[in-house]
Amino acid sequence: MSPDPLSITFAALADPTRRAILARLISSEVSVTKLAEPFDMTLPAVTKHLDVLERAGLIVRGREAQWRPCRLQAAPLKAASSWIADYRHIWEQRLDRLDGYLHELQRKGKQNVRKKK
Amino acid sequence: MSPDPLSITFAALADPTRRAILARLISSEVSVTKLAEPFDMTLPAVTKHLDVLERAGLIVRGREAQWRPCRLQAAPLKAASSWIADYRHIWEQRLDRLDGYLHELQRKGKQNVRKKK
Repeated sequence: MSPDPLSITFAALADPTRRAILARLISSEVSVTKLAEPFDMTLPAVTKHLDVLERAGLIVRGREAQWRPCRLQAAPLKAASSWIADYRHIWEQRLDRLDGYLHELQRKGKQNVRKKK
Repeated sequence: MSPDPLSITFAALADPTRRAILARLISSEVSVTKLAEPFDMTLPAVTKHLDVLERAGLIVRGREAQWRPCRLQAAPLKAASSWIADYRHIWEQRLDRLDGYLHELQRKGKQNVRKKK
């Protein structure tokens, strides 16, 4: 059974080097050799990461021999974001409850200050 | 080198069974045995998935012997969502361009209809 697209996307994102590569591609296309520069790894090692990102549809690589520009493809990220969005109300509810609790603490703190006066 | 929290979260999400388990926990706590019911796998296999989700901080499991309720913890999903949000403008720009292109096609279509009249 081959993995579903969402599993492929999340697996591709489960690595700090691959996420750093995507982050470098936010502003512009970058050649493979330029992309490899900041990483303390061989060009073949970086190429392996690019292969994973390309299979996940997160980047496309130009075919020009001299300058092989990598370009970000955000569609799989949009799908991943949509999946996570179903859970947003849960963390927001918890933040709301925390916020309510802090307000309550603050209110009680002020009451105590008034009583002492 | 142990993986960073974001890599652990994405790796945990890179599996359809684990995502289905999280989806079942959106509305309420569910016991391990109840959680296992819809899946065509053994209880130990489901438990392995729960171990991965627990290590990623995506669920917590109650310690009651009879009824071990699993509860969703959305904080790692919030972090994952924040990471992906940096790329939102990219897919939105592309949708805007597609939208512009479709409007242009529509406008030209109307002009052609008028010319034919």
